[in-house]
Amino acid sequence: MIEFQFIDRLRALATTDAARGLADDAAVLEVGGETIVLTHDMVVEGVHTLAGADPSDTAWKLIAANMSDLAAKGAEPLGVLLGHMLGDGDDRFAEGLEEALDHFGVPLLGGDTTGGGPPRAWSLTAVGRATYTPVPSRAGARPGDGIYVTGPLGGAMLGYEALRDGTGEDSTAYRRPMARLPQGMALAPHVTAMMDISDGLLLDSWRMASASKATFAIQSVAVPIATSRARQAEAMRWGEDFELLFTAPASAAMLPVKAWRIGAVQPAGNAPLLLDGEPLTGPDGLGYTHG
Amino acid sequence: MIEFQFIDRLRALATTDAARGLADDAAVLEVGGETIVLTHDMVVEGVHTLAGADPSDTAWKLIAANMSDLAAKGAEPLGVLLGHMLGDGDDRFAEGLEEALDHFGVPLLGGDTTGGGPPRAWSLTAVGRATYTPVPSRAGARPGDGIYVTGPLGGAMLGYEALRDGTGEDSTAYRRPMARLPQGMALAPHVTAMMDISDGLLLDSWRMASASKATFAIQSVAVPIATSRARQAEAMRWGEDFELLFTAPASAAMLPVKAWRIGAVQPAGNAPLLLDGEPLTGPDGLGYTHG
Repeated sequence: MIEFQFIDRLRALATTDAARGLADDAAVLEVGGETIVLTHDMVVEGVHTLAGADPSDTAWKLIAANMSDLAAKGAEPLGVLLGHMLGDGDDRFAEGLEEALDHFGVPLLGGDTTGGGPPRAWSLTAVGRATYTPVPSRAGARPGDGIYVTGPLGGAMLGYEALRDGTGEDSTAYRRPMARLPQGMALAPHVTAMMDISDGLLLDSWRMASASKATFAIQSVAVPIATSRARQAEAMRWGEDFELLFTAPASAAMLPVKAWRIGAVQPAGNAPLLLDGEPLTGPDGLGYTHG
Repeated sequence: MIEFQFIDRLRALATTDAARGLADDAAVLEVGGETIVLTHDMVVEGVHTLAGADPSDTAWKLIAANMSDLAAKGAEPLGVLLGHMLGDGDDRFAEGLEEALDHFGVPLLGGDTTGGGPPRAWSLTAVGRATYTPVPSRAGARPGDGIYVTGPLGGAMLGYEALRDGTGEDSTAYRRPMARLPQGMALAPHVTAMMDISDGLLLDSWRMASASKATFAIQSVAVPIATSRARQAEAMRWGEDFELLFTAPASAAMLPVKAWRIGAVQPAGNAPLLLDGEPLTGPDGLGYTHG
């Protein structure tokens, strides 16, 4: 219970909608004529990483997850600040960091290093510039809107299993996720709500529907997945694919990027989320909730 | 050695002067017509906190240390983002956080909560707006400038000892440090270099002199201290007083805030730091270096 008490307390302290949505969202700040978007993530060894994880993958995911938060705001990344606990594998960590910074075209602006651990922890703040205002939030979905995703789900799940089981199958989708930065910037003027799918399609849809005070009706057959249909239910609950989830009044054909329409927004009913017409209770069992 | 290798690697990756000065500085970012200042600190239980520390003090110091980094840049605080590992004493942590946010007049914009630890770790990013450009750096001190501090040193040392020894003496200066935000903003147009004294006057002077490629000649008798002269040497090596250290061509009487002139900048000699005419080798033994 202490967790919820603390988060409620933080929410009460927080002064922006983004902050009231702790912990997975980005903050939006007006400075002069510009709109700045800020994300802050903390990653803990053993909580967010597999035992024996390659530190270069940890670094990559730390960057990618925050780039994905910027993407969901239609923001262009300006830089990152890193908090790093020094320790074994730092050379590998630096390699993954460099690869991710290069890939996403974002500079390391500053940060802090310290001793401590195990477990080690890392923190990252990403700073971006909004390319469109108002910045998309989770709360703007309107009845009649379509619900869309930018790509298939379940790839990270397959990559995780390949790594865990040592099958030799490709684990890239789990180890080196992408972030949909170009898509987020292109979509921002067209969406009524947008977020990245970091904790599972169903959980994140439940969150967006709740924030928008609406009901999301999702058709599972319409959800693109990276695995066989037999594993559809799992793929819709697995996080870390970092595709974008958004709502828009437009038809898919009118959108500037490829997207799959997976359902429609309805006026708020008894449940925030309907899957194939059946109400889902949540958020337990819908996806991954961090400790 | 791995520490230095890693920090060197980060420095090589870093694209700004601030980032190349990892880990105690702030990053400066131009966005549109505005100049944003960003700080990022990580605090680890047992590394940066005393055993049995009141979590409300941990929260206060996390905020104050980052406000002090903004002060050194002459920046007005706009908000903070917090990374928090959930655990015992979170109610107290939230109380201290709220008190500090109120005191410094800064909103909590967002953040992240997670499980993990012990040891627990916290991360904080502070965002500010530069009130004067060019933003003061550590590297601008010029021969002929005066060297100044904004207040007495050693108060945090006395507070730490009171707390450690349970003497009942006032430990406020250690537990609840201030940050010189008004002074930093007022001084920014007048200084050639500025930083906050977080790791000790001598160590931070050595760093500023090195960054400025100059020699700092400090007269110990001129250094204001919060304790008896018998403990002068310690007071000049103790951190966390968070006074500002700066250089300026002006006389103290012309400065907009009260400050003590403690020495003069000289052309670079054999050592970055002279104390009462004697060269000091550093940085070992000059102050507090974080693990």
